[in-house]
Amino acid sequence: MIMSENKKGNLISVRDDLKVVDATVRDGGLVNNFRFTDEFVKDLYETNIAAGVDYMEFGYKASKKIFPEEDFGKWKFCDEESIRGIVGDNDSDLKISVMADVGRTDMDTILPKSESVVDIMRTATYVYQIPSCIEMIENFHNKGYETSANIMAVSTASDGDLDQALELLGKSSVDVIYLVDSFGALYPEDIRRLTAKYLEFGEKYNKKIGIHAHDNQQLAFANTIESMIMGTSYLDGTVRSLGRGAGNCALETLLGFLKNPKYDLVPLLNFIEKHMVKLHNDGLVWGYDVPYLLTGRFNCHPRTAIAFMKEKRTDYAKFFQETYDQDN
Amino acid sequence: MIMSENKKGNLISVRDDLKVVDATVRDGGLVNNFRFTDEFVKDLYETNIAAGVDYMEFGYKASKKIFPEEDFGKWKFCDEESIRGIVGDNDSDLKISVMADVGRTDMDTILPKSESVVDIMRTATYVYQIPSCIEMIENFHNKGYETSANIMAVSTASDGDLDQALELLGKSSVDVIYLVDSFGALYPEDIRRLTAKYLEFGEKYNKKIGIHAHDNQQLAFANTIESMIMGTSYLDGTVRSLGRGAGNCALETLLGFLKNPKYDLVPLLNFIEKHMVKLHNDGLVWGYDVPYLLTGRFNCHPRTAIAFMKEKRTDYAKFFQETYDQDN
Repeated sequence: MIMSENKKGNLISVRDDLKVVDATVRDGGLVNNFRFTDEFVKDLYETNIAAGVDYMEFGYKASKKIFPEEDFGKWKFCDEESIRGIVGDNDSDLKISVMADVGRTDMDTILPKSESVVDIMRTATYVYQIPSCIEMIENFHNKGYETSANIMAVSTASDGDLDQALELLGKSSVDVIYLVDSFGALYPEDIRRLTAKYLEFGEKYNKKIGIHAHDNQQLAFANTIESMIMGTSYLDGTVRSLGRGAGNCALETLLGFLKNPKYDLVPLLNFIEKHMVKLHNDGLVWGYDVPYLLTGRFNCHPRTAIAFMKEKRTDYAKFFQETYDQDN
Repeated sequence: MIMSENKKGNLISVRDDLKVVDATVRDGGLVNNFRFTDEFVKDLYETNIAAGVDYMEFGYKASKKIFPEEDFGKWKFCDEESIRGIVGDNDSDLKISVMADVGRTDMDTILPKSESVVDIMRTATYVYQIPSCIEMIENFHNKGYETSANIMAVSTASDGDLDQALELLGKSSVDVIYLVDSFGALYPEDIRRLTAKYLEFGEKYNKKIGIHAHDNQQLAFANTIESMIMGTSYLDGTVRSLGRGAGNCALETLLGFLKNPKYDLVPLLNFIEKHMVKLHNDGLVWGYDVPYLLTGRFNCHPRTAIAFMKEKRTDYAKFFQETYDQDN
C-alpha cells in the first residue's frame, strides 16, 4: 500500500484533530469587495453550525487608515459589532475567525479576547514578512486568541527561506501554521513534499498544520485531501469554491468526503440553492477558467487573469504570451 | 520523499511511454448527441496535431441496427468515410481512435486495418462483459488494430471480479487496459490502490495501462496525474472537460502539466477561444455542478444528475435524498 507509513487515518476513519474552516465570506469577499447581504452571512453562519463546520471566517481586520470604508462591504473590516450583529454572543460550537494581513492591520483596534466573539486571529504573511507576522501573533496570543500564520504564495518561496520561516514560527506562540497555495500553482506531488516539511516542523514544535488551496489548475480539493491524509488538520474551503480568481477547495466536496458523522452536507446544499445560484445568476463571476490555469501554471499572482475575465476577453493564446512575458 | 519507490518520472522529467488521448468528440458527443460541425472536428484534428496530442477519438462505432441514424450526429457511428472526410489519409503523427461498446457494435461493419485510417479500437466494457469484450478485442486485433479494453464503472466492481477481469485481459491480445472512473466516484487514494493493481497485471502480461477520469468531485485531473505518476501511460482528456455530466480531465490542464516539449498548449488555447466559448454561449451545459458531486459521492451513474440539470432544478437537498434512496 502506497504512502501507508505516511498516512494519518484512512478512507473510512475519523480523525478528531480535523477542523473544517469555511472561508467563504473572507476569500469570496475578494470577488465582490465584501458586499454580502446580512441575510447571506447570517444564513451561512447558521448553515455552518448545522453542517458541523468548525470555524467560519468573517473577513479581514483591515485598517481603515489604509482602506476607505466606503469602498468596501463591512467584512473587509470585521468590526466587533458587525460580527455580533450576525452571531450575537455566538452561543454555538462554531468558532469565529478573522484574518489580519501583515502591514495592513491597525493593531490598536484589536480588542482583548475577553471583549470579543472572535476565537482565532489568522495572520496572512509572505515569507519575507515573518518577523512582522510573529510580532502580530504574539500580540494576538497575549490578548487571548488562538492564532494562525498563513504563509501565502508558498509556491514562490525558496526551501531555505521556508525552513527559516517555519523554524521562527515554530518558536513563536502560534497555534496553527498554514500552507497557502495562493497562486494555485502546486500539484499534489508538490503538496506532499511541502506538507511533509510543514509536519516536520509542526511535530518538532507542537503546532497544528493547515492548508488553503486555490483551484487554478482544478486541484484545490485534491491538494486539500492529499495534505490532510498526511496529517494536516485545518482544512479551508469555500461554498461553491467562491474565492479570488479560480476560487478555493469547494466546501461541499470537502464535507462530502469527510467521514465524521458530525459533518452534514444537506444544510450546505440548502444554502447553495438559496444563495449561491442567485449570486451566479446576478452575474458574479468566479471559479476555474482558462486564464487562471495559465497564471497557476506560470506560478504568478492571478491579478492579470482577473482583469482578463473582467474585460470579457477570450484571446487565451495572447494571454498565454502576456503571462509568459510577465513571468520572464 | 514520499512514494519515491513507486514513482515513474518526476515533475521535470519526460516519459516516452506517455500518450495523451483527446476524447472530446466521443465523450463530448454524449452531451450533444454527437452533433458537432465538421469545422469543429476538423479544427480539433488540426489542433491536436499542432499540440502534440497522441490520439484523437472520433466517436463510437455504434450499430445502426440498434441506434437510428437520424437521432444522432455522425460521430455516433464513425463510418470510415466520415473520418476520412476530416483526416483524408491522416498524413500525420496523430493516431485515430474510435470506441466500440460491448453489445452495441455491429462487428461485420469493422473494416480490416489495411482499409481504415483508424489506428486503435477501444472497447468499452463492464466487468461482467469481459468475455464478450475479449471476443471483440481478438477480432479487432486480428484485423490489425491496436486495441484497448476500457473497464467502465470500476468503482462498483468487487476486487475479486476485477482481478479476474484483469487476468483474462492479461492473457488476451489487448494492448492497453483502462481504469475508467465512469461515475467520478474515486478519490486519489482509491486511484493509487487501483492503479497499483492494474500495473501489477500490466507488468505481468506486458500491457500498457490507461486512465479515463470524470470530474464529478473535481478530481479528474488530479486522479489522472496521480495514476500517471505511478506508471499509467495512456491519459484521456477532453477540451474544457467536455464530456458526459461533470465531464473529464481537462485536456488543457493535462498539456499544461506535461513536460515533454512535444506538447504545446497554445494551439489548444486558440481552439478553445474559437469553438468552446461558442458552445458554452450557445447553451450547451456540461462540467462540475452540485448534482454530479452527489452522484459521484454516492457512486452511481450520473443519469439522474443529468436529468436534474436538464430540468434546471436547483433543489439540491431534495436531489440528495432522491440519490440516497436510489442508492439504497
